[in-house]
Amino acid sequence: MNKISTNSPKGTRDFLPVQTKRRQWIFDQLKSVFESHAYVPIETPAMENLSTLMGKYGEEGDRLIFKILNSGDYLRKADEQSLQAKDSNKLISSISEKALRYDLTVPFARYVVAHQNDLSFPFKRYQIQPVWRADRPQKGRYREFYQCDVDVIGSTGLWSEVELVGMIHKGFSKLGLEGVVVKVNHRKILAGMVEVIGKADMLIPITVAIDKIDKIGMEGVQKELLEKGLTENEIKMLKPMLEGNNDLSSMRDFLSSSEIGMEGLNELEFLLNNCAKLNFDLQVDCSLARGLNYYTGAILEVVHPDFPSSICGGGRYDDLTGIFGLPNVSGVGISFGADRIYDLLEAKNLFPSSLKESVDLLFLNMGDEEASLALQLSSELMDAGFSCMLYPDNKNFKKQMKYANELGVKKVLIIGTEELTNSEVSIKDMESGEQIRVSQKDLIKTLKS
Amino acid sequence: MNKISTNSPKGTRDFLPVQTKRRQWIFDQLKSVFESHAYVPIETPAMENLSTLMGKYGEEGDRLIFKILNSGDYLRKADEQSLQAKDSNKLISSISEKALRYDLTVPFARYVVAHQNDLSFPFKRYQIQPVWRADRPQKGRYREFYQCDVDVIGSTGLWSEVELVGMIHKGFSKLGLEGVVVKVNHRKILAGMVEVIGKADMLIPITVAIDKIDKIGMEGVQKELLEKGLTENEIKMLKPMLEGNNDLSSMRDFLSSSEIGMEGLNELEFLLNNCAKLNFDLQVDCSLARGLNYYTGAILEVVHPDFPSSICGGGRYDDLTGIFGLPNVSGVGISFGADRIYDLLEAKNLFPSSLKESVDLLFLNMGDEEASLALQLSSELMDAGFSCMLYPDNKNFKKQMKYANELGVKKVLIIGTEELTNSEVSIKDMESGEQIRVSQKDLIKTLKS
Repeated sequence: MNKISTNSPKGTRDFLPVQTKRRQWIFDQLKSVFESHAYVPIETPAMENLSTLMGKYGEEGDRLIFKILNSGDYLRKADEQSLQAKDSNKLISSISEKALRYDLTVPFARYVVAHQNDLSFPFKRYQIQPVWRADRPQKGRYREFYQCDVDVIGSTGLWSEVELVGMIHKGFSKLGLEGVVVKVNHRKILAGMVEVIGKADMLIPITVAIDKIDKIGMEGVQKELLEKGLTENEIKMLKPMLEGNNDLSSMRDFLSSSEIGMEGLNELEFLLNNCAKLNFDLQVDCSLARGLNYYTGAILEVVHPDFPSSICGGGRYDDLTGIFGLPNVSGVGISFGADRIYDLLEAKNLFPSSLKESVDLLFLNMGDEEASLALQLSSELMDAGFSCMLYPDNKNFKKQMKYANELGVKKVLIIGTEELTNSEVSIKDMESGEQIRVSQKDLIKTLKS
Repeated sequence: MNKISTNSPKGTRDFLPVQTKRRQWIFDQLKSVFESHAYVPIETPAMENLSTLMGKYGEEGDRLIFKILNSGDYLRKADEQSLQAKDSNKLISSISEKALRYDLTVPFARYVVAHQNDLSFPFKRYQIQPVWRADRPQKGRYREFYQCDVDVIGSTGLWSEVELVGMIHKGFSKLGLEGVVVKVNHRKILAGMVEVIGKADMLIPITVAIDKIDKIGMEGVQKELLEKGLTENEIKMLKPMLEGNNDLSSMRDFLSSSEIGMEGLNELEFLLNNCAKLNFDLQVDCSLARGLNYYTGAILEVVHPDFPSSICGGGRYDDLTGIFGLPNVSGVGISFGADRIYDLLEAKNLFPSSLKESVDLLFLNMGDEEASLALQLSSELMDAGFSCMLYPDNKNFKKQMKYANELGVKKVLIIGTEELTNSEVSIKDMESGEQIRVSQKDLIKTLKS
């Protein structure tokens, strides 16, 4: 038989037990925060209809969606013209009906519309599931990764934004990560800025440029804005805002002529004041845009000085469900990037050491009669809260002990001929090496003490 | 904008909050059993290389694997001949390199070989992840469903089989499901049976036929065996075994001339005796084959009288890792069918009612100053273990109370002008309708009592 490669596909990963436990621990910490804030879990399928996803993430996004080939004789319905022209792009819709989800936001919008009669609004949901993107794999960027999304949908109340900022702090505090910086901007402030310099029609290209300030610096942004047709003077007007001159009074001066800008500023002020009262740290950053055009209000992003990209982000969107036939439903949400958070916690050595431990007790296998008794005691020990196993083979002592060592077992239990006769068990502490013998009826009591 | 369908793809499902919680509860119960038995979690990617999966599940299985279209200009590398001939099947390998996993067993085999140097053997792992099959959707059969697999790999010790039978009973007991029947057969007994009737070369077709006995009855099986070329007499010889004449002594008589049959019988006897000693109920069923050719030893299946198909199953396989270049590694494992178990528990109304509850406490929103205080108290209440939310909008009282009702909130907390002035909170019990007012400093104490 040919030997088949054992690699997982490019950009995807297998997880070893300790990694899996650590990932699960991250999810559990976040879940406990979400649930204490009265968010409830939902799940959607990995596959969505292609029509649900296409056109929601821009042209680049469409390209990065993993499409699933139709089953059976898929070429029978293939578009003849595209096939002859070998037009890969045009052929897709006739040979693929489904795709892997690209994020959790669009499936959630579909879900809300589909199940609107089963939900109470404002609907507070969380969702922890993987998403897939055909991105070029690189350090910290995977083709399969988990998003942990929390959203409130069906309410315009700004208290949700306040709550989300609090949850960000609470979440990272639960994960033991200090020093996170929560940044905020407002879409209407961005709109006000471009209105003030007389370029209201260029909101998107301008924000796309200034969003890159962290990567290409103010000079790079300036260059891009010039290329996009802004004058030196217009750029000079924007500069103080972009360079972090973000006290509210100078923002108020700058935006005073723009109605939408002032609206954004008032909302931002509400958010800042109420977060301050609750000691939720929050920093204004007028260059923050997060690329996504669907944000209509507050824009949030969390960064950490020891990590190159954002580890959480989100914002308010006023009409995500409109495309699925339910207009005028406002929502706000954030998404924790579990895989980036994992990488950061690992680099900073912040995972609890208890996640490395696996097995409390291991019975050596000294023969069938002994093993049968071991399994019987094992059952009682598990009921008492220990994790416990019997070595499945009657191999030599040294081999079994070596295994116990590799596994990091805390205590090895031995039932040999003598112990069997005297209804006893020997307990070997794997750390101290000490060995004692106790009666079987005292086993649990001894191990618990 | 065109309205887009809100359906999820055929054969897939969205899960409402209570469903998601119930599913999570099933996983949690099983996980606790797996972990107490010293199994550790792993995860593998949803996508595998197509070459990893193809040819492992038979021709029908290959057809049911969801293939992922290559990204970019996938037609550029498409096989010209298959394209011209419109041969869907032959074209696949040139336009698709990846596929969604079909089960957890083959990815696990690949994983073991890939990470053999990082694992200690016997390696005891569990894995709870979804799998995908392009099956025709029908009641209880989904295109996306979860498998909960537990395997021991790298040991031939039959104690693992004993442990797995115990885990099956423990698992279903944790789920509150009584009346499960654990059935066992042995591949070598099947081999012995066909050897005894002189048809050793027809092991696979004969077991495929007798495996259907639950669906098509003994008569249907007889018909199929005749069609496959067995004589009336040969079928008559098999009949007592297939009809459940499964006491060990008559099996011993029947199989006495077959070495492999007696080997299987001895192993079965070991398993039965040791399960009996531990009170793990186990029933022999010589017609059990579970279709899968990779089983080489014990074959296990769990059924319930109120459910038409098996809810758990597995067995021993001696050479699953061979195809990936690591021969002679024996493994044994079982897989719990979480979605079927869900359907059964739901039909029997066995889910804990606590899974329906979501929110302990809801603060009405009576204005900005009141809301700010509510969020502050909220934070303390969450630290004290309550799930708690503030209604995000300052809507009218009736609307907020209606929401609290729909959500099944236990207690509504009210801070209005009076409460604000007197540092108090009103607590309305949503079940009794009773309302009391307490000082803010006594709030937690009162709610806890």
